[in-house]
Amino acid sequence: MLRSDAWSATLPGGASISLVTGVSARDDCAVYSLPGMDLVVGTDFVRGVGFSMYENGQMSYRDLGYYLVVANISDVAAMGSLPTGVLVVIRYPQDFANTAFEEVMRGADDAARHHGTRIVGGDTGTADDLYLSGTAMGVSEPGTALLRSGARPGDHLFISGDTGIAEAARQYFKQVAAGGARLVDDVEQALGESWRRPRAEVELGLALARSGVVTSCQDTSDGLKATIEQIAEASAVGFDVEADNVPVSPLVEQVSAVTGRTVEDLTFGGSVDFRLVFTVDGGAMTAPDAEERFPGATRLGTAADHDAVRLVRSDGSASPLPGRPWRHS
Amino acid sequence: MLRSDAWSATLPGGASISLVTGVSARDDCAVYSLPGMDLVVGTDFVRGVGFSMYENGQMSYRDLGYYLVVANISDVAAMGSLPTGVLVVIRYPQDFANTAFEEVMRGADDAARHHGTRIVGGDTGTADDLYLSGTAMGVSEPGTALLRSGARPGDHLFISGDTGIAEAARQYFKQVAAGGARLVDDVEQALGESWRRPRAEVELGLALARSGVVTSCQDTSDGLKATIEQIAEASAVGFDVEADNVPVSPLVEQVSAVTGRTVEDLTFGGSVDFRLVFTVDGGAMTAPDAEERFPGATRLGTAADHDAVRLVRSDGSASPLPGRPWRHS
Repeated sequence: MLRSDAWSATLPGGASISLVTGVSARDDCAVYSLPGMDLVVGTDFVRGVGFSMYENGQMSYRDLGYYLVVANISDVAAMGSLPTGVLVVIRYPQDFANTAFEEVMRGADDAARHHGTRIVGGDTGTADDLYLSGTAMGVSEPGTALLRSGARPGDHLFISGDTGIAEAARQYFKQVAAGGARLVDDVEQALGESWRRPRAEVELGLALARSGVVTSCQDTSDGLKATIEQIAEASAVGFDVEADNVPVSPLVEQVSAVTGRTVEDLTFGGSVDFRLVFTVDGGAMTAPDAEERFPGATRLGTAADHDAVRLVRSDGSASPLPGRPWRHS
Repeated sequence: MLRSDAWSATLPGGASISLVTGVSARDDCAVYSLPGMDLVVGTDFVRGVGFSMYENGQMSYRDLGYYLVVANISDVAAMGSLPTGVLVVIRYPQDFANTAFEEVMRGADDAARHHGTRIVGGDTGTADDLYLSGTAMGVSEPGTALLRSGARPGDHLFISGDTGIAEAARQYFKQVAAGGARLVDDVEQALGESWRRPRAEVELGLALARSGVVTSCQDTSDGLKATIEQIAEASAVGFDVEADNVPVSPLVEQVSAVTGRTVEDLTFGGSVDFRLVFTVDGGAMTAPDAEERFPGATRLGTAADHDAVRLVRSDGSASPLPGRPWRHS
């Protein structure tokens, strides 16, 4: 619907700025080319998904502010960029306590500092309900910002860790609120912490961008299935994901046992875990070398020259990825 | 509440970025220093104030999108910067028509292009209600971004045009919706257009920044009273505003006559007209020279070394500025 997004300008002093990747590319962030650096900027609204955890008593106002900022920084991390600042929109109902507002801001400030950056601005005031939105910026060395669109057949598909924990937590505490079976305290604590203190993978993103061998990257904030499918679409490749390689969290297995949700649905569906999914140039680096280069990352499969995104099981059977993305109607 | 916002980083290639003005300065935008340019970025939520005009049938979805983007670009204009892009958050209820969403986006795109920039990203999807927020970025030549904090006693206080029209429109159409007296079609049209097709003063902002004589600047998106008081506070000066110099729109006079709201309340109160209020260095330029240099701008008064912000009438009497800022509880 939006027209071409080519745009550039030169200041009288001679410095130029040009838009490299705008809205039409559907990346996590827009990318600008500036003297000596690339600038990335993206924006994320958080109301909706986070609030069932809040409503079920698992998140304080401080946790909401923290989460808002991590969700935004994760978009910058997925571009392989260094976060340079976050703006927050915090609008609240007339009867919102001053202390509650201060707790949201304190959480936001904590999250920014824990990720090496700052809250640099925002818009606060009343509204008819609580609304939280943010914008994060970052910088990269020229030409190194990671996009969704660079994967090629033969590239190795990687993920930075296990997924499904955030969705497992959401489903678990919903069930507990409805009087369902409980898991032990340590497990409950770990599930809740995935929302209270999420982590954006800034260091890994920077390492991926600097490696020169990473051809695409995206965070899993839309869930693992959606993430792989979006890279596939942007890069015009398919993916064969090897079922045996998919890292599964023990937390997800425990929640699956008490909620009846399948491990695969939790792992691939709309779980917002802020992991990074990325592809490594298959011609430049072997998969074992990439695993050594990016410790903690797991090879999920391979980019293919067919146009399907498939889960391939050890018996050779293939099916679409399980799970449903939670958003975008 | 937020701690110091000093922050800087240097990329491995040697390019540096540092935060010049963050959230603690309470400017319209944060300011960064980059190689060869300054970068400004600000964010604005628009739900609330705009919606009485929408609810009273004066704004279409396309107009809402247009307004959202102008409100955000105005913050960049007030910094004397060239807009480089806008991100929009458009979240809507489940039953929101696709065509309505497309109209919001089309209005946003139109507004960006009419102001020489582009929509470069955003976050769209469902929520429990319609929620509109944006972020605008801009660039300036190094060290030229206009802040609120530079006014000094003896500086001339200027405004780029008349104010009160937006608030007059809001009050007028509220009264019409309640069955009140009507004004002629041309007047209704002009009142409605102030919300449907507002204009951010980008060209003037750039001229102010390049002049080298402008010591502070802010847009009137919080209303004229609040704008002058915020510059006063940030700059630690007072202002004597000369009542006879305040430009009054004939539209405001007509609405005052049928609504009973005073002209002064409409002009100084919470009217979102996106004008620029700025100060000119009194030691560097006389007021008549400044009026010639910035055509269309009107001298309102003078920055003073007392700490009051006063309306001074021709009989010498002085009072606080009339009107109430509409927001910030």
